[in-house]
Amino acid sequence: MKAFYGDLKLGILGGGQLGRMLIQQAINYNVTVKILDPDREAPCRKLCDEFVVGSLGDYETVYKFGKKVDLLTIEIEKVNVDALEQLEREGVLVYPQPRIIRLIQDKGLQKQFFKENDIPTADFKMITSVDDLKQVDFPYPYIQKLRRDGYDGKGVYRVADENSLANAFTEPSIAERLIDFEKEIAVVVARNESGEVSTFPVVEMEFNPEVNLVEFLISPSTLSAEIQQEAERIAKKIAEDLKIVGLLAVEMFLTKDGKILVNELAPRPHNSGHQSIEGNVVSQFEQHLRAIFDQPLGDTTCLSNAVMINILGEPGFEGPAVYRGIEKILKCPGVYVHLYGKALTKPFRKMGHVTIVDNDRAKAIETARFVQKTLKVVS
Amino acid sequence: MKAFYGDLKLGILGGGQLGRMLIQQAINYNVTVKILDPDREAPCRKLCDEFVVGSLGDYETVYKFGKKVDLLTIEIEKVNVDALEQLEREGVLVYPQPRIIRLIQDKGLQKQFFKENDIPTADFKMITSVDDLKQVDFPYPYIQKLRRDGYDGKGVYRVADENSLANAFTEPSIAERLIDFEKEIAVVVARNESGEVSTFPVVEMEFNPEVNLVEFLISPSTLSAEIQQEAERIAKKIAEDLKIVGLLAVEMFLTKDGKILVNELAPRPHNSGHQSIEGNVVSQFEQHLRAIFDQPLGDTTCLSNAVMINILGEPGFEGPAVYRGIEKILKCPGVYVHLYGKALTKPFRKMGHVTIVDNDRAKAIETARFVQKTLKVVS
Repeated sequence: MKAFYGDLKLGILGGGQLGRMLIQQAINYNVTVKILDPDREAPCRKLCDEFVVGSLGDYETVYKFGKKVDLLTIEIEKVNVDALEQLEREGVLVYPQPRIIRLIQDKGLQKQFFKENDIPTADFKMITSVDDLKQVDFPYPYIQKLRRDGYDGKGVYRVADENSLANAFTEPSIAERLIDFEKEIAVVVARNESGEVSTFPVVEMEFNPEVNLVEFLISPSTLSAEIQQEAERIAKKIAEDLKIVGLLAVEMFLTKDGKILVNELAPRPHNSGHQSIEGNVVSQFEQHLRAIFDQPLGDTTCLSNAVMINILGEPGFEGPAVYRGIEKILKCPGVYVHLYGKALTKPFRKMGHVTIVDNDRAKAIETARFVQKTLKVVS
Repeated sequence: MKAFYGDLKLGILGGGQLGRMLIQQAINYNVTVKILDPDREAPCRKLCDEFVVGSLGDYETVYKFGKKVDLLTIEIEKVNVDALEQLEREGVLVYPQPRIIRLIQDKGLQKQFFKENDIPTADFKMITSVDDLKQVDFPYPYIQKLRRDGYDGKGVYRVADENSLANAFTEPSIAERLIDFEKEIAVVVARNESGEVSTFPVVEMEFNPEVNLVEFLISPSTLSAEIQQEAERIAKKIAEDLKIVGLLAVEMFLTKDGKILVNELAPRPHNSGHQSIEGNVVSQFEQHLRAIFDQPLGDTTCLSNAVMINILGEPGFEGPAVYRGIEKILKCPGVYVHLYGKALTKPFRKMGHVTIVDNDRAKAIETARFVQKTLKVVS
């Protein structure tokens, strides 16, 4: 590989907030960054060496973009994998590897991978028709998930009873036993080309049930050492089974009887790792760069307690974004604001995030609640 | 003022590493950034909304650039102040204020300001001719400094004895009594439009005498509380006397008999505050943005011990930069690399910096020495 701090051209598929925070970190290494995104107003548009407007799903567009770079990575999974595989054959480095993106794009393949590799996960059944759904032997209610293109809660359907079947998805999907979980947790793990693997400490999440988005994240977890070690062991095992190069976010359920079940994977920086920018020695973005550049992985130790909240567009507002209350939250020590540079807000759109660090965990949570009440994105 | 996170256009005079790190921070607030720099290959060239190539010293160029922004700041003092004053009259916010830039551009005016405001500083005499030099009543050796355009050790002459007078500067200068100092220290202070003032904890510096550049900086200082309080008091007093809006770096000498003498001011982010990116709750760049946007100033508390070293171009090498040893230093925990994106290296050019954070101060210094030995910029 060319020296990453020199002439190496890094291509990123997707120019959203994850690409933006990756660029903020890549600046420290002089990396030449090219971005492909369909939205000419994407958050990365002004922060890269070259910004190309084009479809991430189109073979020709992705292929042509990839031919101009030395190393290609993603900030979103929904990309044309055929093009990535062709680029890989032609010698472009693609991390995470296209076969992994292909696997993770399909929740059915993801679940099969878990099953084949003894990775604990909720019971499931592949569904190709409503008839298949009728044969599901889990009790109601259970969950139906589209195999492809689900995102931030979209593509998920709760099958409450037999009557719900009429409105079920007809596209290829999986049925999944409903997990009565205690908590959602996540582990971000990284693996570099040399095979070094490193996990970030376990984080705990609170979801906004209305929109099924992570809204409140606490790092590090205060679950028992046993549970945390098990979560980290599972995340490492997945990274090693996949032989991924790059970052992998592993979302898990902790069931009420103390078992861990893997929910979903994301082969890239992830919302559940944003607090690492201020809360850990290295951030997930730094770690992703180190992994794909085949550098030594960084120290993931927590520097202090950190709470991360997503800044979502206020319901009822759509249009040019206005941020209310920033002055008030900037008065709180240990509050870090990250706005994503999106011109337009709409209800529940991720417009930014705030991380609150405090050695006193209860105080960090209290400040987070204040931030949540105070900072509003309207128009 | 327009909301800083919205439509506000921030112009920065200078597109070097300080502008680059300011942009890295400004990304978090969605600020629209325009840069003016004479070098089309300047470190900021790809990271801003608009990059204008032009002379910072030219009235028309600076004026035209300034008319396109709402708020203008600097990352270098050597700019056309007449244009800034005109822009200020026409309603453009210019922070730091032009009168302060004018004062600080001229080491003679700076010294007079110290004298008039009872700010302790080394004895000096204004020099307009070699005859003036002959009348200096300090003992040899003493220091002659050009009033204008000195930078990173340039424009400084050591008058060793009477024979040295033949080679002395003939431009307007000051003669300054040589200080037999114990240590060089610095305080970065910020003041916002509302008059809030906040200092960063005192840092201690070690210079590379060969090139007169800060090479090794330790934060926080371990000097007595009394000395540190005095240094912070002086920095605050200067910020308040000047009524500066923005950041002010105050470089000081601690004399062998425990007195503090102010050496020089820089009205902007400064090399002696780089460690704050990882070492303090808010960085100097965040603080400068908060000050000029009239936001509450941030918490400057040190998170841990931090050592900062400049990465200078290795003597004997000139041309496209190659960084040797990065892999080795990335193996050390708590090591943060910042490369400035300069394509060409030359001897002693500032190519980047590395910050080492460690709760154990001795270990941070040890790691810094390892980094210094290991990381080399050649070509």
